[in-house]
Amino acid sequence: MAKATGVQRLPKKEYEARVPALRGALVQMQVALQHAPFPVILVVAGDEASGKGDVVNLLNAWLDPRGVETFAFHEPTDEERERPPMWRYWRCLPPRGRMAIYAGGWHAEALRADPHSPPELADFAENLRRLAHFEGLLSADGALIVKVWLQLSKTAQRDRLLALESDPDTAWRVTPADWQHNRDYERRARLSEQMRRATHKPGAPWHVIDATDPRTRNLAVAGYVLTRFRAHLAARKKLAPPAPPRRIVPLRPAGLRRLLALPLDQSLSEIDYEAKRDKWLGRLNQAVRAAADRGRSIVWVFEGWDAAGKGGAIRRLTSALDARDFRVIPIAKPTDEEKVHHYLWRFWRHIPRAGRVTIYDRSWYGRVLVERLEGFCREADWKRAYAELTDFEAQLTGHGIIVLKFWLHLSKEEQLRRFRHREETDYKQHKINAEDWRNRRKWAAYETAVGDMLALTDRPAAPWHLVPADNKRFARLEILKTSCKQIAAALEE
Amino acid sequence: MAKATGVQRLPKKEYEARVPALRGALVQMQVALQHAPFPVILVVAGDEASGKGDVVNLLNAWLDPRGVETFAFHEPTDEERERPPMWRYWRCLPPRGRMAIYAGGWHAEALRADPHSPPELADFAENLRRLAHFEGLLSADGALIVKVWLQLSKTAQRDRLLALESDPDTAWRVTPADWQHNRDYERRARLSEQMRRATHKPGAPWHVIDATDPRTRNLAVAGYVLTRFRAHLAARKKLAPPAPPRRIVPLRPAGLRRLLALPLDQSLSEIDYEAKRDKWLGRLNQAVRAAADRGRSIVWVFEGWDAAGKGGAIRRLTSALDARDFRVIPIAKPTDEEKVHHYLWRFWRHIPRAGRVTIYDRSWYGRVLVERLEGFCREADWKRAYAELTDFEAQLTGHGIIVLKFWLHLSKEEQLRRFRHREETDYKQHKINAEDWRNRRKWAAYETAVGDMLALTDRPAAPWHLVPADNKRFARLEILKTSCKQIAAALEE
Repeated sequence: MAKATGVQRLPKKEYEARVPALRGALVQMQVALQHAPFPVILVVAGDEASGKGDVVNLLNAWLDPRGVETFAFHEPTDEERERPPMWRYWRCLPPRGRMAIYAGGWHAEALRADPHSPPELADFAENLRRLAHFEGLLSADGALIVKVWLQLSKTAQRDRLLALESDPDTAWRVTPADWQHNRDYERRARLSEQMRRATHKPGAPWHVIDATDPRTRNLAVAGYVLTRFRAHLAARKKLAPPAPPRRIVPLRPAGLRRLLALPLDQSLSEIDYEAKRDKWLGRLNQAVRAAADRGRSIVWVFEGWDAAGKGGAIRRLTSALDARDFRVIPIAKPTDEEKVHHYLWRFWRHIPRAGRVTIYDRSWYGRVLVERLEGFCREADWKRAYAELTDFEAQLTGHGIIVLKFWLHLSKEEQLRRFRHREETDYKQHKINAEDWRNRRKWAAYETAVGDMLALTDRPAAPWHLVPADNKRFARLEILKTSCKQIAAALEE
Repeated sequence: MAKATGVQRLPKKEYEARVPALRGALVQMQVALQHAPFPVILVVAGDEASGKGDVVNLLNAWLDPRGVETFAFHEPTDEERERPPMWRYWRCLPPRGRMAIYAGGWHAEALRADPHSPPELADFAENLRRLAHFEGLLSADGALIVKVWLQLSKTAQRDRLLALESDPDTAWRVTPADWQHNRDYERRARLSEQMRRATHKPGAPWHVIDATDPRTRNLAVAGYVLTRFRAHLAARKKLAPPAPPRRIVPLRPAGLRRLLALPLDQSLSEIDYEAKRDKWLGRLNQAVRAAADRGRSIVWVFEGWDAAGKGGAIRRLTSALDARDFRVIPIAKPTDEEKVHHYLWRFWRHIPRAGRVTIYDRSWYGRVLVERLEGFCREADWKRAYAELTDFEAQLTGHGIIVLKFWLHLSKEEQLRRFRHREETDYKQHKINAEDWRNRRKWAAYETAVGDMLALTDRPAAPWHLVPADNKRFARLEILKTSCKQIAAALEE
């Protein structure tokens, strides 16, 4: 085998002497990880022929394979193509306490675009921004993200390809594309450096490892993983648990003003309502079918006060849809599989296929409403969430999904009337409980949080519609009308 | 609109007078269902133009859409095509406490094959058998399965098609295929009757409803759902909870004899082992790659005594595989999402894609081992399970998946040695706990259960390999060899 030039090779004996301790430490790390409140995301990327596959296989051999899963991203499946690009990464994320290894990571896929022209380069840069955001989300949530880049010089890469070719057992691994890469080394090195710069962030730094000598490379990767794990575990232990806030201060009073300015005294007679309702239900049916014909999906988000009539509004809405095309996802307590993932994971998993509809009855906005007010997450978490939520929605709308968001607004008096009515009506008693009364006592705090949500997450592509809901008929009609209009506008673009 | 001949039509007024009570009862049913220990599976199938879609939409309008989901099966996605046919139905099953409506059900898909030739008819019959088995599984697990067949006479069907065509709003719904169906009515009626006969079982009966008059049809469907639900709820309440068995009696002593006859005194020197191991690891690598090239997936199942060395065996095995192609699924306590589904659901969800590998560290055999012995399920449940498990595996092997099953056998003395060693060794202490000691005290009972498992689930296409595991090296080599041989044999077929 050709010798790497200018690089010290680690003697086999020395290597073998150091491996057992490293393996032991890795397995101990896995044992500790099982009870740690975070997942480990390990990306092994690098130049062609730098031995990414070998490193990934080696780590799998050293680790207990029962606590780790390895992913490589090739051609997306049709189920993946019908969703926003990041969906396939979200579905491969490890839960807390587990580890996933990504051979090439999402980065290899970005580099595979091999951009040349200015628009291609602009797409590439935008894609990198999205990847950096994705890693930022995960690391802010506590994930340990370890990314190594295995680097080979042009000469070392050529030597490695020659060596692989000269061995009949490995010759099949060298493809014409590999030689093309080697000839085009400088440009590709620039692209991967641009990629690393764009995705090198405090919680998700790149660690470049010289891959010329495989033994040195192997030890370096394993050693780096261990170092990062220990530091992360220690840092996480120092974190105080989240606590309920002392007082709720508006971040953006404009939102609260908008909410309070909403007139709630609308009226609509039964006769008027029925006449108009059927017209708008028909239009909605046509609008949703037109969207489906174009492969456009629709996501409805319903938020609002307890007893504001979300369920009823959803029923009127779905009566215009074909039952085979929609799903209603009620958001209550997360399941335990959801609890061990990032808070957005449970929403990503229900993103509809092309031409289908998902209706969320309560949504990701729980992060800046109930989680903010009850102290289920830290102040930094919910403050950061406004940007996370708008980015999530931007990914949906960027993929052509139409996102309709409704806040059903109620006066405090009307809520009281409805609570009492529920308590007094036999078949509605299951709809009211102590928690509803507790939330009601925090009305002013919720108002502030809703105001901030409106001010900070209202976007042209995914606007908030405030619906006066003291009058149920008015609210339902308003939702039908607004939905038709937004869908029609989206299809005209 | 053309009048149906010879059928009494329900006057609109009478219909509208009866609907509110029915709707109220349906919503009450959903409230009761939320706390019921079973799911509701509602299949709405029927002749062409009998109004299946209308009925499904109507039920969705009457029910609270937040507790029900509707599915229709069209072209499978590529992720579905790469798995056995039933996989796509398993992934759409509702959890306990929820309801799913299937427009056409799996039955419509079976009928879509439209068999003519004798081999096609044989495939059709085989497919029906599989569907009946699937429904039998679910109903034996407690699911309420309601299946309605909406029936139209040939004349009524023709009238309905003419009526649809004459209305510009619905004309698009009539396709040339619909008319073809009507001309071919008698043959198709015979096929659907064959289908209903083959899938009409005690826990999953067909209920045929005359669909000539839509209003009568709607009331009949809703009324039947309610009747079945109430009866099911009442019957389930009478069921006693499962209890631990008093004594364990072998069902098939031949299995226990086979187990006890296994010689455990093998020896294999370190040197011999290392020489042979590398040869067999190389062969295994080639065998797995050859399987992948043909799109064949592999499923490994590891069962065995506590401390029998399953983890170590899996590590040796995976060291021969590419980490990007396999997953190891450790089977411990089910997650809460798994707990609310059929016990096989958690295994179905990890069935590999074409050419990939899943390694189960413990498996579905827990049903006839720990669940039998600890009384986690009823006697009828684990007794039925032998057939359920072999059928599950037959579906895998029928799809071309290679299924390798290993029982790692240990002497009681060797287990004791290993337990003690674990307790004494710092970094192995996490591998031993009180439960291991408890299980050990039930050694004889477990032996009996293992014997029955061996006798009742050993099949030519998915045989049990008994591995003497007192000597770890011997066991690991044996697993490598046996795996290579079975994979090679499967590829030669």
